[in-house]
Amino acid sequence: MTGSALPSPAQAPDALPAVLAPVNDDLDVVGVRFAEMLGEAGEHSRDLVRHAARFNGKRLRPALTCLAARIAGGGVTDDVATVAAVVELIHTATLVHDDIIDGAEMRRKVATLHTRWGNHAAVLVGDVLFSKAYHAAAWLDDPFAARYLSEVIGEVLEGEIHQNQVSQDPDVSEDEYRRIVRGKTAALYEGALVVGAHYGGGDEKLQERLGAYGHHLGMAFQIVDDRLDLTGDEEIVGKSLGTDLSEGKMTLPVILWLRDRPPREQESAREWIERAWEQGDDAKQLARELRKSGALARADEAARSEIELALACLQSVPAGPEREMLETLAAFVVSRAS
Amino acid sequence: MTGSALPSPAQAPDALPAVLAPVNDDLDVVGVRFAEMLGEAGEHSRDLVRHAARFNGKRLRPALTCLAARIAGGGVTDDVATVAAVVELIHTATLVHDDIIDGAEMRRKVATLHTRWGNHAAVLVGDVLFSKAYHAAAWLDDPFAARYLSEVIGEVLEGEIHQNQVSQDPDVSEDEYRRIVRGKTAALYEGALVVGAHYGGGDEKLQERLGAYGHHLGMAFQIVDDRLDLTGDEEIVGKSLGTDLSEGKMTLPVILWLRDRPPREQESAREWIERAWEQGDDAKQLARELRKSGALARADEAARSEIELALACLQSVPAGPEREMLETLAAFVVSRAS
Repeated sequence: MTGSALPSPAQAPDALPAVLAPVNDDLDVVGVRFAEMLGEAGEHSRDLVRHAARFNGKRLRPALTCLAARIAGGGVTDDVATVAAVVELIHTATLVHDDIIDGAEMRRKVATLHTRWGNHAAVLVGDVLFSKAYHAAAWLDDPFAARYLSEVIGEVLEGEIHQNQVSQDPDVSEDEYRRIVRGKTAALYEGALVVGAHYGGGDEKLQERLGAYGHHLGMAFQIVDDRLDLTGDEEIVGKSLGTDLSEGKMTLPVILWLRDRPPREQESAREWIERAWEQGDDAKQLARELRKSGALARADEAARSEIELALACLQSVPAGPEREMLETLAAFVVSRAS
Repeated sequence: MTGSALPSPAQAPDALPAVLAPVNDDLDVVGVRFAEMLGEAGEHSRDLVRHAARFNGKRLRPALTCLAARIAGGGVTDDVATVAAVVELIHTATLVHDDIIDGAEMRRKVATLHTRWGNHAAVLVGDVLFSKAYHAAAWLDDPFAARYLSEVIGEVLEGEIHQNQVSQDPDVSEDEYRRIVRGKTAALYEGALVVGAHYGGGDEKLQERLGAYGHHLGMAFQIVDDRLDLTGDEEIVGKSLGTDLSEGKMTLPVILWLRDRPPREQESAREWIERAWEQGDDAKQLARELRKSGALARADEAARSEIELALACLQSVPAGPEREMLETLAAFVVSRAS
């Protein structure tokens, strides 16, 4: 499978562990670095930090960093393993602070920190994870990761604050939704690839191409994630679903559905969305309406377009098994259980 | 005033602005850097970040950084102004996250972020402030600040997590209290002086001496702060008082009072403390009892001992107006309105 041809779902593996199997050895090395960073936690934060590390589930971002480093020709050196672990640590920290925001009770079938120890501890443990990530980045000889990733974190936070500000607002546009997703998800996907390419010795052009692939992959990932929140199976996805609606979060299917209502239905459609934010039954009915109206399919199409753009970015990247894995990952993102 | 002689309260100025007047020009330079760092915030976080920056009241830590740099002989260069602003930014970030923890409603006569925009926004804005601090530190040519301050932040968080874990526990020892205060307060005071001495060109010995002064100053500051929470005047202190007791936080006067109860009174003393955690009236009575029993005076004595240690650290530091200012600041800390 090469170039920009979009793989059909039938070609795509149905579970991430299988997709990542070829980089398992790299991920084990990264895992050791990750554990070392957390091991530096003090006696009072240690248990909390270890609990948070259990959220470290999919290992998708560190896999992207390792693949980018291999494509750049440098392989998974100590520095690459460190930046991969730093990216995963940043991701874990944002999850911990995100859960405070979402009030979600489950994450990867593990009780969230704030449910178990209270908001207080969760805020501080997220801060500890960020501090370990910054600390490890600051000790690299090449300051690129510390400088660049602190900027990426700023972009992630800006996206989350934006999302927070438009909560309970049915008039969020598709453009705003995309800017939010760019910040809260795609920026760190891009970052994972850029630091991998950089510490793997790749030039700026390669960093940029792989970064752009990461951006589009992240956009697709979040669009699919939001769609699974509406229609997924809690057992398979492993976290509480339907939380977007109950939190007043507008996601792409809802935005597209509302946009496409005829003028005379706009008012009642808005009211329906607002009721769904409050009541579980209305949320289920709305999800059925989203499917029937074709809004879910249009959101899926938007995710597939991002994947096409991601694959196009890979065309000027050196061919080989690592590039093929990035292509397979792209196919996986749009074929996840729905 | 020189050496280790402890100044009497009568010698000490009664307001921090007057104490800091000689470094006002330095603090203005730091203020410009601080504003520049915050100015880099995105459009959605900008207002929230600006609101948080209003907590930036006493400017004590950046003053310590500037004084240390001047004592080291390098003056307040661009890099020194940057690290001073970074220290203040870190302090501001911890205040924002602290308020989520404390549920305090007022800070420097300004509504706290979480009261005005909710916990969600406050967690994210604190994260933004940390990211700006790390980002600015990472862009310095000399990586010392990024490496050292990320470790200091880890120590601050460890102290706060420890404090959180012993909440509502009347059996906290004086030693535990001191370890908590070392983390949550003294570590960043020490850090403010160490980075100032370092970027001012001071050798390791000077960094260590000034850092030790900062540690003891911070210990004294927090002991006095905890005492003011019991007996201060809200108008003068400018923040909600009595919160330590209502949050189940054991502070030094309470720890010393309980320790010194005779065995037959231990049980009822514990019960009194627990009632004070729940009821405002009991808290007021307990504060009167702490004064009457001499426990408040013993806590004040502990603060004065820390100040003596702080002044002793200055003896091997080059004499001059900057060292005199550090001595004046030490006197100020123990003479604050009570």
